[in-house]
Amino acid sequence: MSSTQGKAIQCKAAVAYEAKKPLVVQDVIVDAPKAHEVRIKIMNTAICHTDAYTLSGVDPEGLFPCILGHEGSGIVESIGEGVTSVKVGDHVIPLYTAECQKCKFCKSGKTNLCGAVRETQGKGVMPDGTSRFHTLEGKDIFHFMGCSTFSEYTVVADVSVVAIDKKVSLEPASLLGCGVTTGFGAAVKAANVQKGDTVAVFGAGTVGLSVVQGARMRGCSKVIVVDINDEKKQFSYDFGATDFVNPMTDLKDGETIVNKLISMTDGGLDYTFDCTGNVHVMRNALEACHKGWGQSFIIGVAAAGQEISTRPFQLVTGRVWRGTAFGDIKGRTDMPQLLDDYEKGLLKIDEFITHRRQFDEINDGFEDLHMGTCLRTVLKF
Amino acid sequence: MSSTQGKAIQCKAAVAYEAKKPLVVQDVIVDAPKAHEVRIKIMNTAICHTDAYTLSGVDPEGLFPCILGHEGSGIVESIGEGVTSVKVGDHVIPLYTAECQKCKFCKSGKTNLCGAVRETQGKGVMPDGTSRFHTLEGKDIFHFMGCSTFSEYTVVADVSVVAIDKKVSLEPASLLGCGVTTGFGAAVKAANVQKGDTVAVFGAGTVGLSVVQGARMRGCSKVIVVDINDEKKQFSYDFGATDFVNPMTDLKDGETIVNKLISMTDGGLDYTFDCTGNVHVMRNALEACHKGWGQSFIIGVAAAGQEISTRPFQLVTGRVWRGTAFGDIKGRTDMPQLLDDYEKGLLKIDEFITHRRQFDEINDGFEDLHMGTCLRTVLKF
Repeated sequence: MSSTQGKAIQCKAAVAYEAKKPLVVQDVIVDAPKAHEVRIKIMNTAICHTDAYTLSGVDPEGLFPCILGHEGSGIVESIGEGVTSVKVGDHVIPLYTAECQKCKFCKSGKTNLCGAVRETQGKGVMPDGTSRFHTLEGKDIFHFMGCSTFSEYTVVADVSVVAIDKKVSLEPASLLGCGVTTGFGAAVKAANVQKGDTVAVFGAGTVGLSVVQGARMRGCSKVIVVDINDEKKQFSYDFGATDFVNPMTDLKDGETIVNKLISMTDGGLDYTFDCTGNVHVMRNALEACHKGWGQSFIIGVAAAGQEISTRPFQLVTGRVWRGTAFGDIKGRTDMPQLLDDYEKGLLKIDEFITHRRQFDEINDGFEDLHMGTCLRTVLKF
Repeated sequence: MSSTQGKAIQCKAAVAYEAKKPLVVQDVIVDAPKAHEVRIKIMNTAICHTDAYTLSGVDPEGLFPCILGHEGSGIVESIGEGVTSVKVGDHVIPLYTAECQKCKFCKSGKTNLCGAVRETQGKGVMPDGTSRFHTLEGKDIFHFMGCSTFSEYTVVADVSVVAIDKKVSLEPASLLGCGVTTGFGAAVKAANVQKGDTVAVFGAGTVGLSVVQGARMRGCSKVIVVDINDEKKQFSYDFGATDFVNPMTDLKDGETIVNKLISMTDGGLDYTFDCTGNVHVMRNALEACHKGWGQSFIIGVAAAGQEISTRPFQLVTGRVWRGTAFGDIKGRTDMPQLLDDYEKGLLKIDEFITHRRQFDEINDGFEDLHMGTCLRTVLKF
């Protein structure tokens, strides 16, 4: 039993007090976990575009003050009553997509969108409706995506965490909390791409490049990356792309990216993936699909109020428009397979870590995201 | 060998000379079939909304003068060189969705959208680029949807016709040329609905009511019909609906049809089908789907230039937007199964024939379509 068990912990965290302002690295109070809750000592956390999205203020569901961060890894410090999913000392990944294995969604066998903690998670609180984070003055701080990994200690629901094999380093494991899992899962689970399929991936960030990895692992015949930043070209090839198209420079007069992709693939792609969050790109991704069977997956998060549109004829002629969250991965059930793929060298993770920083430099880490040469900045406590 | 074989035939047809004008019933010349073509003596033809759509002038691909009609049945009068799919005297249904069994699409196993005659069919001509229809003065008349059943004799490609069991009456068989097959196939083949699934069908015409039939045959637990015309209520129940909702009269203050359907089904539908062609209805149909797995199928043909739209979040949270043409049915391969279902009483067809007319009354038949009490008017030569 740790000496801190059952007690509040004072520790370092990065607090987002309001939109568009830098995070404030300061001490906060982290309550002991209540029943069916787990307190985790976070060892590593990466910064994802979704954190930046909420911090930018355009996320209509953003709540302040809050502790952001949802891509992390750590060690269980203590558990509340009734917790059986993990034990003290376990190496774990917090899951922003919970898996209770009991709700209508989990039992359906058709989706990874567990309903167990959805409502309270969206409100920035724990399932009992309260927060475990407070300022030293006693003011509540909201949780974020059920994870809040930008804190030395965090508390999550017991359905929102998965224990992992201790032989996997916690630094790469942190990336499985979001981006890598989302992209890889989108290819191998949501789309379930097969040998010989043609694939296009729009947006060569961590998510997109992980789609590329999944497609190549499955033996897809063409894996085309589309990105407006040429700095992503080498990354794309390194992760397994067969082609790279920059729509700003690689199109002939009058040619659209849709035409270009259709001509490169004898009629269009079997699968396309939007990893940009741009609704115009989403439309292109759909329309570049092959008539009769092409499927387009939306992964990126669009800005509030934005809508996708197309002519219904695109769908009537056999294209399928769908989406995926967390790559359709069930965090507690499927994570061992991903770790296995990583250990066998089928899934690259370390290669995404282009930048490493101490936790105190977290605001610089957000700046890193704007560089084309940055895939992930991983912070260390 | 018939006495007309190899010769042009002069016969009755209804010619659409221009948009928005009544059809002109007159004699036309129908050429003998060329190689890989089949000339059919049409016995029955029904009028479908797609005929009215093109006649209205809003179909951007509409060509005039043409002979409309694509839902019919008849007897093979003669065949051109190389035809093996049917023989003289066969009872047949012309197929606006061809099935060559040789092209990339047919061989994919993923779609019914055969590519064999697609281009020329869209241009209102036979695969060799010419028409078999002419006025008595020798002016060419365009074909329509590869069928042109509004003529006592028509010529179709050999990949665009299926022979049927002679014990099935040609009158109900005519409806398998479009509406009944499209709806029934959408449910049992495209969506492949299963026992216990919940289904909503928007638009209770022949297509929609055939979706209802497929859903009931499969044992779906709820089959909700949504239509703004109360005259469709009894039809809906007769064809197997469990519920009927009229959005004009059955919603409470502030309630939307989407809310209503979600509340009727504990979170939304497993499958929805748009059979209206209205893009706003298409959106409602998608958004009434259950989070995590609900699939919405677009069947209706939207007006030119109209677009569908939604928030991408609808798809990211697991709803799937797709469409189907001819219910994903491969006309030559799958038609025997539909006829079998009809003969066993699992698929109602006769019940759609609310009006019968002589061919000469075809313009009155178009008027029938506007009545809520009309499902299909079948014309007889």
